[in-house]
Order: sequence, then structure tokens, then C-alpha cells
Amino acid sequence: MMSRNTMKVARSVIGHMGPRYFSTATARGGATTLLNGSPFKGDKVVVTWMRFPALGARNASTLALGDKQQEEDKKKVHGGATGAAAGGGGGNNNDKAIMSYWGVEPTKVTKEDGSEWRWNCFKPWETYKADLSIDLKKHHAPVTFLDKVAYWTVKALRFPTDIFFQRRYGCRAMMLETVAAVPGMVGGLLLHCKSLRRFEHSGGWIKALLEEAENERMHLMTFMEVAQPRWYERALVFTVQGVFFNAYFLAYLTSPKFAHRIVGYLEEEAIHSYTEFLKELDKGNIENVPAPAIAIDYWRLPANSTLRDVVMVVRADEAHHRDVNHFASDIHYQGHELKEAPAPIGYH
Amino acid sequence: MMSRNTMKVARSVIGHMGPRYFSTATARGGATTLLNGSPFKGDKVVVTWMRFPALGARNASTLALGDKQQEEDKKKVHGGATGAAAGGGGGNNNDKAIMSYWGVEPTKVTKEDGSEWRWNCFKPWETYKADLSIDLKKHHAPVTFLDKVAYWTVKALRFPTDIFFQRRYGCRAMMLETVAAVPGMVGGLLLHCKSLRRFEHSGGWIKALLEEAENERMHLMTFMEVAQPRWYERALVFTVQGVFFNAYFLAYLTSPKFAHRIVGYLEEEAIHSYTEFLKELDKGNIENVPAPAIAIDYWRLPANSTLRDVVMVVRADEAHHRDVNHFASDIHYQGHELKEAPAPIGYH
Repeated sequence: MMSRNTMKVARSVIGHMGPRYFSTATARGGATTLLNGSPFKGDKVVVTWMRFPALGARNASTLALGDKQQEEDKKKVHGGATGAAAGGGGGNNNDKAIMSYWGVEPTKVTKEDGSEWRWNCFKPWETYKADLSIDLKKHHAPVTFLDKVAYWTVKALRFPTDIFFQRRYGCRAMMLETVAAVPGMVGGLLLHCKSLRRFEHSGGWIKALLEEAENERMHLMTFMEVAQPRWYERALVFTVQGVFFNAYFLAYLTSPKFAHRIVGYLEEEAIHSYTEFLKELDKGNIENVPAPAIAIDYWRLPANSTLRDVVMVVRADEAHHRDVNHFASDIHYQGHELKEAPAPIGYH
Repeated sequence: MMSRNTMKVARSVIGHMGPRYFSTATARGGATTLLNGSPFKGDKVVVTWMRFPALGARNASTLALGDKQQEEDKKKVHGGATGAAAGGGGGNNNDKAIMSYWGVEPTKVTKEDGSEWRWNCFKPWETYKADLSIDLKKHHAPVTFLDKVAYWTVKALRFPTDIFFQRRYGCRAMMLETVAAVPGMVGGLLLHCKSLRRFEHSGGWIKALLEEAENERMHLMTFMEVAQPRWYERALVFTVQGVFFNAYFLAYLTSPKFAHRIVGYLEEEAIHSYTEFLKELDKGNIENVPAPAIAIDYWRLPANSTLRDVVMVVRADEAHHRDVNHFASDIHYQGHELKEAPAPIGYH
């Protein structure tokens, strides 16, 4: 049974989902605007320009500019007709708007309170309430040689990290999320290509790993609101990604069970450093600023949430990723392939 | 306003979505079973094994084995306790089941008719009704030099393809989907890494491109039900993926506008060959077999749908991908980055 409130959320969810779930009439989603504006009749194509507000995407993640963006969105569709060829050359080089005759318009979504959805980088149906009840102490005791290599590799990586960041946990979190978002994407990519090469199903693991990558990236989008990277930190991220991406790519190609175990241990370390982060917040060494707007919408947090609440939910996310990756490694250890076990989709 | 039927679908959708949308109580999703079985009390962890049926993933996509799988699913959770370490070494090498103490269980979902959801490789909330009203004739007339290179590259690639496959359109479709699913994944990967390196939002384009890749992969999962790849075709796919993946990766790194234009034209060709496929079906040269179960669930087709209906919806999908990729190329041509235009999420 669902409460009235739940149904209210639910209806708005259906509102968002409409285009994806229901009749072909609505399936067209955002494009309807265009089609109304200029009906397609058989071969004859009446073309309509559409104006997309050019958003300062980096800025769009702050409250103030979120509202600015909403205003911009209002002056969206512009009439007028032109030949099909014109679109390609991109005659219009206006910095503020993008012209297109393809009729590809983003689906317009609203929050359950009816207000316009502010974010382009994620949609309401990707938001969730974090499961804070997850056990943070769970640890995979390394038994095999490979496990021990994975364990000590991660442990060894902690020393330089601790030295570099000291107690700057906000910055540390931001920087580490730029690395944490890589494995899921690499794993998803390789499973996707494998599924294509072998003509076999994925068991949902492609999506599960891509979800992990996206979730970690959302952590970054959140923390960069509270900690600004300095130029040498940007340079460091650039270098680290170059090295880690390729290292992990090769690791996953050669031994997925090792790769997933590494990530399992990385997540265990992440849980540890977020716990340290919380201690510093409680001691008052780090200011417990209000939670960024993006975090409030992504984790469905109360409007008055603070950085502490954000760190709590992020830590819970990492604990879930720890479980998924150790589990994935276990599957390989037991001589199975991931596709043989239904993937934990939406396991946050 | 939603019809009663729509609301029925809607409620079941909410049913599926529950774990992802609502209170932390339900957020735990599938794991609840485990937690009921063995409540976690603070640091003390009572461990419960879980048994995952080892599915022949390739086979799981046929009706018959889909049912078999459902039966297997019923005998899912097994009791018993053990030390944390034991799980990792993978003591149990049973071919039929995978043991795990991580409590990671897939969310159990049902169809709107209440029957168990058969597929692991996609969930009900990824299914949709194809928009068959999309204009199939739309074409981007190449104007710039780069456009012409893209256009003629694709045109040139058609000759060997036509010679290799002749009129075997079922096989042709299957083989081409193994290639068509690559660009979206590569684009999504590169935008993801860029977003991490630059501490910027994606505007939703990562997800939009990954959705395209997943959609193309679902085309493959469908066609491989009606056409079995021969050994030399598998070898060909292996080689072609190796070449195309790297070529497209470099192309996207050096010129995204060129890469997206190439895909736009590839999709135009795909529409053409699916139209030929339909002609052969109508002539009776290709048998109009019943639609595979996976296609009926993925595109929400009537139970009595045929191969012809499947080719129709697949062709509509390709037309949507054509629009998205030409649009993406236009954005770059107009001196913008993709993130500046809200991405067409769920544009099928």
C-alpha cells in the first residue's frame, strides 16, 4: 500500500516517465512541440528551428544559476522555416543558442511539487534516498594471493594520498571521486563489447557498472560545489586519470576478479576517509556548510540538509559499491561469469 | 489525464520503481530478503549465503528457458552462516549456483500483469513503445568538407557489406548491430572521462549516448534470436569490432563533430537496409516468423507480433539515433559543446 504522499510522488514520476512508458502518442515526448509547430507530411518536411539555451553547464549546478536556467528555458522554441541542408553547416554561430532542425528536444520534466526540473545531468527517476542502514564495517579478508595483492596495492596507495591531502577531506573527496568514477565505466564498456562480440546477454551487469560510474560522477558534481580544484589539482587529475584508466582497463581485460577486488578495497578505504571527514566536521575543523542544491535533489534530502548529511549518503553509496564489487569478484572466483548472476540494478 | 489502463501500468511501474524512488525503508530493495533472514546488528554481522541461479544467459532470452529461469528463481535464498573470509576464496565451485555473503540481491520486479519479470539484461522501466511516426526520409545534406568525407566513407562501406550479405537481411541486421552499439558507448565513455577531468556537468549527454548504445545492443539481443551467427561471422565481428572501436575512439577524440556525423549517416544507411528487409518480408523471401519474446517485452509489442513488427520498431529507433547524432554534430559545428544543450534523454 502506498501513502497519499507516495502516490503524489508516484504521479509526478509517471509524469516524467510518460514519454518512455506509454502510447506512441506520448512516446514522442519533447519532440511533440516541434511536430505541432511543423507537422511532417509524408515526404514533405516542413522544418522548424529550435533554440536551445546555451547553459554554462558548470554553473548550472548552483542554486542561483539553476533559476536563471529555468528562465532561459521559457524562451525555448522559436518558429521559422529553412532548407534541410542549412542546419549542418551551422550558419548561426550565436554563443547563446544552438540551432537544430532535427526536432530532438529534451523531455521536459518537473519535480513532484510541480516546479521545473533544474538539472540536465540527471533526471528525477535517477534520484533516490540513500540506504544509511548498510553495514559500514563489512570487510573482505584477503585469502588468495591475488586478493592480498589487491589489498596491499590499495593500502600502499593510501600513503601518498594521506600525505598529499593531509586533513583537507573536502578536497580529498572531490579528487578521489574523479578516480572512483572510472572503474564502473571501464567495466561497463568491456562487458558491453564482450556482449556484442559473443552474442550473449549481460545479465544486467553492464547497466549495474555504468550506474556505479554515474553515481560516483554525481559525487564529484556534488563535492566540486563545496571545494574548488586548484590548477595543480586539475593537472594531477588529468595525469592520474590517464594512468589509472589504462591500468584499470588492462587489469579488467586480464583479470576481472582482480579488478573488481581492487575496487572493493578502494571503496573500503573510501568509507574510511568519509568517516574521517565526518569526524572533522563534528570537531568543527571543517565548516558544516549547507548541502549543495544538486545533492538535495539527487539524494532527495530535506531542504535544510548540510554537508554532513551529504557525506553520510555518499559514504553509504560507497558501501554499496564495495558490496557489488566484492560480490562481482566472488562470482569470478567461483568460476562463473557475471552474466550468470542477475545484476544488482539500482542497488544504492 | 491518464486512462485507467495507463494508471494500471503506472502503478506496476511504481511497483518496480519503489526501491529507487521511495523511503529508505524500501530503498534497500531486493536486499530486504537477506536482512530479514539475518538482521545486521551494529558491528556484529550475521552472515547469510545467497544462492543465485546460474543462468545460461544466452538461452535465457527464449520463451521456454525464460520460464525455466522463473522456476529456478523461486528456489533462490538459502539460509546458513559462515565467516566473512570464506566467501572470497570461493570455496564453493558448484556450477549451478553462486554463493555470496555480500547481501547484494537483484531487485525483484514483476510485469504489470503481476507475472515475474523474465529478463536480467533489461528492466521494465527501460521498455517503451517505439515512435513509428518519425520521418524516415530526413537526410543531412553534406555541405562542409568534413561532412562529405563522413558521407562518402559511409557510402563506400556499403559496397563490401552489400556484397557480403547479399539479401540475407536478418543476418545483416544482426551483424551490423554489433557495430552500431559501439559509437554510443565510446562517446559516453569519453564524455564521462572529460566530465571528470574538467569538473564539468555533462548536460545529460553521457546518459543519452549510453542509452543509444544499450538500445543498439538490444537490437542485437533481438536479432540473434532469429538469426544464428556462423563461426566465420563471429570471427568477422571480432575483427570488425577491434578495428571499428579503435577507429571510432580516435575519431571521437580528434573530432566529435565528424564522429557524430559518421554515425548520423550510418543510421541513414541502417534505415535504408531495414526498409529493404521489410520489402523482402513482404515479398515472402524472408519468413515473417513470430517476434522473439525479448522484443515483445522490450518494445511493449502485442503478444502476436511478428518479425515485421520488430523490424518496424528497430527502424524507428535507428531514425531517432540518426536525429540525435546529426544534432550532436550540428552542436559542435556551431562552436558549442554538447553539454550546452540539454541532452535528449529517453528519445527513442
